[in-house]
Amino acid sequence: MGPHPAVAAIRLAVRRVLHDILTDNSIATDASTAPAESPADGPLVLVACSGGADSMALASALAFEAPKLGIRAGAVTVDHGLQPGSDLRAAEVVVRMTALGLSPVESVAVTVGREGGPEAAARDARYAALDETAQRLGAAAVLLGHTRDDQAETVLLGLARGSGIRSLSGMAETSGTAGRYRRPFLQVDRQTARKACMVQSLPVWDDPHNADPAYTRSRLRHEGLPALEKALGKGVVEALARTAQLSRDDADALDSWAAQAESTVRDDTGLLECAKLYALPPAVRRRILRRAAIDAGAPAGSLFARHIEEVDRLITGWRGQKAINLPGRVVAQRQGGRLVIRQG
Amino acid sequence: MGPHPAVAAIRLAVRRVLHDILTDNSIATDASTAPAESPADGPLVLVACSGGADSMALASALAFEAPKLGIRAGAVTVDHGLQPGSDLRAAEVVVRMTALGLSPVESVAVTVGREGGPEAAARDARYAALDETAQRLGAAAVLLGHTRDDQAETVLLGLARGSGIRSLSGMAETSGTAGRYRRPFLQVDRQTARKACMVQSLPVWDDPHNADPAYTRSRLRHEGLPALEKALGKGVVEALARTAQLSRDDADALDSWAAQAESTVRDDTGLLECAKLYALPPAVRRRILRRAAIDAGAPAGSLFARHIEEVDRLITGWRGQKAINLPGRVVAQRQGGRLVIRQG
Repeated sequence: MGPHPAVAAIRLAVRRVLHDILTDNSIATDASTAPAESPADGPLVLVACSGGADSMALASALAFEAPKLGIRAGAVTVDHGLQPGSDLRAAEVVVRMTALGLSPVESVAVTVGREGGPEAAARDARYAALDETAQRLGAAAVLLGHTRDDQAETVLLGLARGSGIRSLSGMAETSGTAGRYRRPFLQVDRQTARKACMVQSLPVWDDPHNADPAYTRSRLRHEGLPALEKALGKGVVEALARTAQLSRDDADALDSWAAQAESTVRDDTGLLECAKLYALPPAVRRRILRRAAIDAGAPAGSLFARHIEEVDRLITGWRGQKAINLPGRVVAQRQGGRLVIRQG
Repeated sequence: MGPHPAVAAIRLAVRRVLHDILTDNSIATDASTAPAESPADGPLVLVACSGGADSMALASALAFEAPKLGIRAGAVTVDHGLQPGSDLRAAEVVVRMTALGLSPVESVAVTVGREGGPEAAARDARYAALDETAQRLGAAAVLLGHTRDDQAETVLLGLARGSGIRSLSGMAETSGTAGRYRRPFLQVDRQTARKACMVQSLPVWDDPHNADPAYTRSRLRHEGLPALEKALGKGVVEALARTAQLSRDDADALDSWAAQAESTVRDDTGLLECAKLYALPPAVRRRILRRAAIDAGAPAGSLFARHIEEVDRLITGWRGQKAINLPGRVVAQRQGGRLVIRQG
């Protein structure tokens, strides 16, 4: 009798990613048929574990799959210091990771700032700690436990910004410097991860922040998404996750088109020629304008669709408008058939 | 003292579209400064009016703006025959449209079928009646009262399909044969339309279907969207409407890229060359594959992202797979470096 379907599902998801990591690292392209003799020589893969169901399931699957592929499996848990007793919690996670057979296992305490709001600040501190730990331990990859449900929530958060398909692309399967971060569970739902913990008798911790309505993501999880499912039917989470993947591919293609087209619309002095911009599809033209504004010093996060639309009207609806002020003291103006975008 | 801001907003929205219609019809490009002497010679613009707040507001704005531009303004109301007394309701709308000074005003009774579910069947019958009426009366355009809120709902309905950015593009400002249908209120919210009716003392009718939880759109309107707004903040409707516009432009650009690229990836006999397809960005390649499947006879509505992904793996993950069955008895298979997609 094989493992429970939920356990089989999480192991398969992790196995796929581990194969990928081996291929990328050119350590062994066919490690499944010829396992490394000494796992001590294999690459190190870390799991980032909070003690919650998703990352506990991920850790258990990594512990099971890694040795078969000659990969060393370790873990890191980040103590955000945001709740009383968080240090004890982190110590508990270390004990559990060690019990799963992972090694090395580290607990890293961080100080969470305030920049960008509580969720962004915690995330920044967490990734900085993971980066540092991965570097220090020479890890080939860090696995993150984000599930398909997390992905659906991320798409809705992007939708609320209304800033186009890039913000609908959610989280990437691979991200970070040299593709360090991997998300094996983006196609696995939260329910499966939880079930896998249950049938493996793994204790899980429910972060009270995940249920705190002060957090946008928590409101979305407990109220927004369920209401949307009630209205639209059960497939919403899957549809949102698929939207993420399709949007990502579309955004990548359009970015590459814009990058290629950009070189064809500049004159000898490097200025953008309005007539040539005009001839491009709006989607490509606006990406070039956005890039130009960022290159001139506009902070990407403050540059909204309405800014770019206004600059675009210098091309498509020219009637002698005056210069347009963009974030970061960047000014866009039309001069003799050229578009000049620079810091004022 | 000018009109109430809500009335000013709906009039401005209609004025913009009427200018557009005049330009497109090349009747008079500067009609505002040189109105047509005899409105009887001007183009006819119809408003499709259900008696609800959105289309009543639209009719009132059309009645106000059209004469100033030398445009004849008429109206048509469709009696779907789905509720007892719907004929009396249609007669009432005719009286109200006539009272606004619109002429001609027509009421058209239709028989709603069952194909595609109740909402789709009603829509099909309605557009067929509007098409016929516009043609018979020689109307240059038919104005539809869809608001920004309707657009937001349409984007969410598309999101639930998870079939990519085309289904996120919502409704177009201009659609139908020769751009017959115009939606002046896509940037106007429902609240403004309702307010404009109130301050103009226009009686409005609330379609009970709009509050019937048996309809997906109604559930979305009364439960899904409010819950999403509660979780994400008040700007959700606006963000969804902006997403529609950005997605539409992106989808258009990618479709044009795919159409152009398609001719470069076929061999002398017209077959798709796998190596050339492989070199394209996934977003472009999958659009070409989708087109090819539809050209071969697969019904567009039954062709899902997962079908195209499977065909795509014949290109990107070739390991001797057998032929893939697509809807409409279309078969896709790889033969000697070529992709053959045809009806089996």
